[in-house]
Amino acid sequence: MAPSSPVKRIVIVGGVAAGATAAARARRENEDTEIIILERGPYVSFANCGLPFYFSGEVAHRSALLIQSPETLAERYRLDVRIGHEVLAVDRAARRVQVRLNEYAVPDGVPGSEFSLSWDRLILATGSQPVMPEIPGIAGPHCFRLCGMTDLDRLHAWLTEHKPRHALVLGGGLVGLEMAEALTRHGLQVKLVETAPAVLPSMDPEFSHAVAEAADQAGVETICGSTVLEIDQAHRIALVQTHRSEHPDNPAGAPRRLPADIVVVAAGVKAENRLAVECGLEIGPGGGVRVNRHLQSTVDEAVYVAGDLAEIPLRLTGQAGRLPLAGPAGRQGRVAGANAARSLLPKGGALESYPGALGIWVLRIFGMAVGSVGLTEKAAAALQIRAGAAIVHRTPRAAWMEPSGQISLKLVWDRDSGKLLGGQAIGTDGVDKRIDVLAAALAGKLGVRDLEQLDLSYAPPFNSAIDPLNYAAMVAVNDLDGRSPSVSPAEFLHRFDLKQDLVLDVRMPLECANGHIPGSLNIPVDELRGRHGEIPRDRRRLYIHCAAGFRAHLAVRLLSQLGFENVVNVSGGWMSLRHYFPAPQTRR
Amino acid sequence: MAPSSPVKRIVIVGGVAAGATAAARARRENEDTEIIILERGPYVSFANCGLPFYFSGEVAHRSALLIQSPETLAERYRLDVRIGHEVLAVDRAARRVQVRLNEYAVPDGVPGSEFSLSWDRLILATGSQPVMPEIPGIAGPHCFRLCGMTDLDRLHAWLTEHKPRHALVLGGGLVGLEMAEALTRHGLQVKLVETAPAVLPSMDPEFSHAVAEAADQAGVETICGSTVLEIDQAHRIALVQTHRSEHPDNPAGAPRRLPADIVVVAAGVKAENRLAVECGLEIGPGGGVRVNRHLQSTVDEAVYVAGDLAEIPLRLTGQAGRLPLAGPAGRQGRVAGANAARSLLPKGGALESYPGALGIWVLRIFGMAVGSVGLTEKAAAALQIRAGAAIVHRTPRAAWMEPSGQISLKLVWDRDSGKLLGGQAIGTDGVDKRIDVLAAALAGKLGVRDLEQLDLSYAPPFNSAIDPLNYAAMVAVNDLDGRSPSVSPAEFLHRFDLKQDLVLDVRMPLECANGHIPGSLNIPVDELRGRHGEIPRDRRRLYIHCAAGFRAHLAVRLLSQLGFENVVNVSGGWMSLRHYFPAPQTRR
Repeated sequence: MAPSSPVKRIVIVGGVAAGATAAARARRENEDTEIIILERGPYVSFANCGLPFYFSGEVAHRSALLIQSPETLAERYRLDVRIGHEVLAVDRAARRVQVRLNEYAVPDGVPGSEFSLSWDRLILATGSQPVMPEIPGIAGPHCFRLCGMTDLDRLHAWLTEHKPRHALVLGGGLVGLEMAEALTRHGLQVKLVETAPAVLPSMDPEFSHAVAEAADQAGVETICGSTVLEIDQAHRIALVQTHRSEHPDNPAGAPRRLPADIVVVAAGVKAENRLAVECGLEIGPGGGVRVNRHLQSTVDEAVYVAGDLAEIPLRLTGQAGRLPLAGPAGRQGRVAGANAARSLLPKGGALESYPGALGIWVLRIFGMAVGSVGLTEKAAAALQIRAGAAIVHRTPRAAWMEPSGQISLKLVWDRDSGKLLGGQAIGTDGVDKRIDVLAAALAGKLGVRDLEQLDLSYAPPFNSAIDPLNYAAMVAVNDLDGRSPSVSPAEFLHRFDLKQDLVLDVRMPLECANGHIPGSLNIPVDELRGRHGEIPRDRRRLYIHCAAGFRAHLAVRLLSQLGFENVVNVSGGWMSLRHYFPAPQTRR
Repeated sequence: MAPSSPVKRIVIVGGVAAGATAAARARRENEDTEIIILERGPYVSFANCGLPFYFSGEVAHRSALLIQSPETLAERYRLDVRIGHEVLAVDRAARRVQVRLNEYAVPDGVPGSEFSLSWDRLILATGSQPVMPEIPGIAGPHCFRLCGMTDLDRLHAWLTEHKPRHALVLGGGLVGLEMAEALTRHGLQVKLVETAPAVLPSMDPEFSHAVAEAADQAGVETICGSTVLEIDQAHRIALVQTHRSEHPDNPAGAPRRLPADIVVVAAGVKAENRLAVECGLEIGPGGGVRVNRHLQSTVDEAVYVAGDLAEIPLRLTGQAGRLPLAGPAGRQGRVAGANAARSLLPKGGALESYPGALGIWVLRIFGMAVGSVGLTEKAAAALQIRAGAAIVHRTPRAAWMEPSGQISLKLVWDRDSGKLLGGQAIGTDGVDKRIDVLAAALAGKLGVRDLEQLDLSYAPPFNSAIDPLNYAAMVAVNDLDGRSPSVSPAEFLHRFDLKQDLVLDVRMPLECANGHIPGSLNIPVDELRGRHGEIPRDRRRLYIHCAAGFRAHLAVRLLSQLGFENVVNVSGGWMSLRHYFPAPQTRR
């Protein structure tokens, strides 16, 4: 009989989302392996995404965010969890890591002491770290980044001690917006600076504008297309320069001096890839580690990578990229953990595959929900996909239920294949539902015709008999079949030529009085059968819009049948266009 | 040049959901056709599904439910809408209908007068009518059926005038439950009688039991497996007989005498198919009209059928059937309207196809949401499909958000192909979302592996990083791959043999004290590594359960690796099983 082989060991670097998930899954797959988590911070398996809610007061007890402790993980999964353990280096040839203990090492670790540990399988789940822009003064004590519980505790303590009045948030992405809202809940005056031309730059402009409007109504001024030149620590002032192209009225060289008793930096994250780089793993253009479909490093099958550090397939682009989100991190952790554990089983075992990520997120902000999945119109354009866009504004439940709420939804689809490419939504509620349905539709490679006919659950408290998704798909199919050609507002603004084209506004005159496109012709849709003679027939293109898109569709159908050529519906109507045209009396 | 052809005419019989939708779509497709809607009732295009909400007071104004009037339809779509017009007969050979005016004919129709009308295309959208069981006394003035606004007005008037105290609802389907809840809001004591063994008989028993429990807590007694023998009009009493098999303690021949000041009948609907039968259309087993994929009658291409009257493909069974729901009715109306109109265009036009329906619904009831899509476990069994079932109990949003709520979810999937077959859910919220995501997954023919890896939008207010759908799919994949075999509670109860099998309960002793399976062995999961020697190894099968399923899964994985054979997880755990086992102290 062969001597019993020594116990195999899996070492996991990083114990938050992907790491802790990988460890638990590895144990379920392999009872006989030693599994060690090395976490340099003081916590494992905590709810990072919950930090803004803890900060806003919606999660009352910080303990609620500590999902597992080293003790519970040890008891249930027989895991060896070591906090305050920082990995200094990975030696792949020797299959060892060099570890140093820091101040969080408990209960009897000596900070500063080092040791070396061997592994049979290594799982790297070191995640991301916040980007700190190089701005003079940003290292001041009143400037905060957000990377885990410790940073948040510091911020909390500062607020309590210094009672700042004015906050400046750097970055208008998801975390920046969440923090801006949370700071207003603490009673601060908040301004937010974003370098891109609009907040949520990963969305199409209609949605960014709508979020900026909601921020404004919540008292948060968003200053886009702007950079912070300097943070004056002594006077609690930030110098903010708006780029000329973004704001033509702004005289060049006149940066605004904004009060900033406290500065919160939410300028995105970058891969925490030092170990990976130094041990010679292949690094992709996004700074993450290149992996195969089993989430093994492309250069070393014994090294698995999961979470923010991995460059994974993005299913809609066909390219690889990093996606620092909790959902994919957990799913990757499961796959990496299972594969590392199975590869150590005496009999082996088939490895699992990770199919890649759709790119999906949702955000609750300023009383609204905002979400996106797959490709935006501009992302599709960047990939040189011939994309159609259908925008609708509907109620998330039956229009006669109180309160009916509202939702704006945009579908992006491939004009060549009719397949869905992505979707975005903003509204009072029901946003997460529509985005998730689109996720399943994208995974199933459904086309706009499939979505038009998709049965979605109907009861008045939940939606209309024709769900906004069905409705948007109808718009897309009418466009695809040439029955009612559509362009998005951005596309319209890009293409429109006052000399050659005409805008026909088919709303009621009272609606137009509250804002309209200069030079447009107004004939209400219900008068069009009697008044179509007023429309010149010599224009290159006749762009038709109403408030939300439906009446314009009726007008397109009617005028097409009356022999008008080149009639086009501006999708989303005035509710989407109004962001581009100042109202007669602008509130500020 | 040929003489201009006379104007073609589309006649639509029925103007509520499918009919009104068909008419508007027909106009958009064909500006030159005459379109006439013949509706025998007083309203067109009203929100039938809103009636229970109007009755409960949640929709304050009845006018809100009148989506369109004959006047608005005429103005916008140039439709000729005639209310109070009943079609007596269809002559397909002559392409004519015989019409009689009733009391709702306005403004200048003479009730009782008749006329004949020719058509080029006929769209039958006559819908359903309520089933009235043949029970002595059911024709009494205090007995109400629900078929449109008129019935509801009568019910309202009766409540105001007679101030009844006790209501009896006949039928425990969707409408019966909605009406039972609405009657409690009017201050009535409500009992509900259902002939099937449980309410919502189209669901699997775990969900029916949960709904009955919610009804009980809301003060509605549900009396299932029972029939009403007689309604005593004079004494306001109903005699209700519970079948012996459903309630073994009930002495045979002792019907209960229930107070019934008012009786509301919600015993389902049947196709309003008289015209279709009499004009010789092909009728299917469900009493509806057989149609082709363009929704043309199988015997006459000039006759289109849409809505409750049509027998349409049920996508998951591969069979045809009627599905009296508003969503499919509207979608069919669009297709029928477009096709009728296009077939009359001088150039013709490609006809649209209706792909069939998934069978999906959702219900808000007793503070819960309940929904279903596709096949239930019992429906799959009836179709002789080898189905797996995965039940999970989770929170619809991050567990540490307050209130986190709860959701119970069941996936039904094909053990041969791994494809999804259907799903059911009940919970505080997020039910409609999960059911709709499953609808898209079913349309895309996704399997449980696809759902396990599906990216769904994550933010703490909306779900957990691992959505309940992902979680349920993990359970299914673990079952499919043999890592953690599962059975549903119903399957367990069917198969379990006390002599040969053993139940291992891996909850904490305190949990078991509140209810457990008699004869089960209790070893908490976290003690299993040290105590597995206590488990007999000679049993045919070892059924393992915990509270919700996760700890049982850990136990299955551990014991399998320790050499135990035939270990099976009872999916859904005690939260699903408890309905079958009386608690130590039953409240009543």
